[in-house]
Amino acid sequence: MNHFFVEPEDIRGDLVIIRGQDVKHITRSLRLQPGDEITVADGLENKYLVELTATNDKLVEGEIKKELEVDAESDINVTLLQGLPKSKKMDLIVRKCTELGIDKVIPMETDHTVVKLSSSKAEKRKKRWQKIAKSAAKQSKRTRIPLVEDVINFESGLELVADYDLAVMPWVAEEKQGLKDIIQQQNTKEIEDVLIIIGPEGGFSPQEVASAREEGVQPVLLGPRTLRTETAGLAVLTMLLYELGDLGG
Amino acid sequence: MNHFFVEPEDIRGDLVIIRGQDVKHITRSLRLQPGDEITVADGLENKYLVELTATNDKLVEGEIKKELEVDAESDINVTLLQGLPKSKKMDLIVRKCTELGIDKVIPMETDHTVVKLSSSKAEKRKKRWQKIAKSAAKQSKRTRIPLVEDVINFESGLELVADYDLAVMPWVAEEKQGLKDIIQQQNTKEIEDVLIIIGPEGGFSPQEVASAREEGVQPVLLGPRTLRTETAGLAVLTMLLYELGDLGG
Repeated sequence: MNHFFVEPEDIRGDLVIIRGQDVKHITRSLRLQPGDEITVADGLENKYLVELTATNDKLVEGEIKKELEVDAESDINVTLLQGLPKSKKMDLIVRKCTELGIDKVIPMETDHTVVKLSSSKAEKRKKRWQKIAKSAAKQSKRTRIPLVEDVINFESGLELVADYDLAVMPWVAEEKQGLKDIIQQQNTKEIEDVLIIIGPEGGFSPQEVASAREEGVQPVLLGPRTLRTETAGLAVLTMLLYELGDLGG
Repeated sequence: MNHFFVEPEDIRGDLVIIRGQDVKHITRSLRLQPGDEITVADGLENKYLVELTATNDKLVEGEIKKELEVDAESDINVTLLQGLPKSKKMDLIVRKCTELGIDKVIPMETDHTVVKLSSSKAEKRKKRWQKIAKSAAKQSKRTRIPLVEDVINFESGLELVADYDLAVMPWVAEEKQGLKDIIQQQNTKEIEDVLIIIGPEGGFSPQEVASAREEGVQPVLLGPRTLRTETAGLAVLTMLLYELGDLGG
């Protein structure tokens, strides 16, 4: 069944109103008609079975048939603090992390970041990434759309560490500590919010790793094969959601 | 340090000969010269530190300085049996699975496969995917290049199951069994060869799931979010290499 997001204010009692680009998707691409059913989420983790009642060029109306008891979101909230990668890699990162179950993505400029975005370009990119997150959340039938935040610098990134129960940073020069070691050191029941910090193509500078360590960030070695920047975050997210979340069953 | 693969017969005593496209890469792109060092693997899990001794347009010669004791390959061998996806998704799958540590990729036609490849096109694609695997193995500094095999049909795919200690098949209609349940049921020390079976965009048909079950394949639910065909294999591979292999440390 096809799944859509609406703003909470577009659910009024049993009436659901769908606006914007989804109207064309529903009426033209999917050719759905009154009587057909879809599922709708409000982004606040409520999900409904909805029967379409009317469609026109501007909007689609539906009626809530029942609230669905679906827990599509993990109990742990994972934020990805991602060193800005080159070309369109960030699109892939946002899309795949949304599917897997990320909570928030924050792009970051670091010592080795090659891409420099003007503030107008950064704003455009943020809108683009947020749109990708919405589209991927729809396709993976999530009940929440991950938030994509403004690009920040490394120092501002480190200020966020204190808000998390665990912060990990893959680093090729880390010789011993794997993700399993880190998780075994913790009382896993107390871990609710996790921060993953990933460097850009060139990795982190030794100074950045030292500052991160001082803030309590755990450097981690991801096995003996070198993962690219766009793969490292996905891999850590998958392992965390397997070990602490809902991906492993 | 830059990493290259050569054929085993191109290592003769201490002499290493590099041919083909890598010559241009070394001399033109990287502008390496006699005296510069690279690492070289023979695809048989041997890795060497090599000093370049001579370069010309056709080949690069080097001398082995020492054998490197690097264990870049996981103790478990994972094969991905992947339902042929649309467009260029297979490129992404081969590239990312190689980085993460796959051993073999076998494309498969299933009931819901949309893409039909003529035998000449299938041969071309296989060459393309094998090239991607080699390039990704180089970048991730592996000591083995994953093998990409010919496209097979679902029945031939099921005949492979008996060769593996564990075969898992993500299936959206599986209600209970997660990957953790499956792994807990097994003596993990006896698991060396694992088969991951992934459907194309439309998933598997109920008949296919029934036949797979009869052959001992374990259907598995990958959490409550719907993963795309090109994400499911990566996710299962990551979880398996975390739990049974070398990705978690």
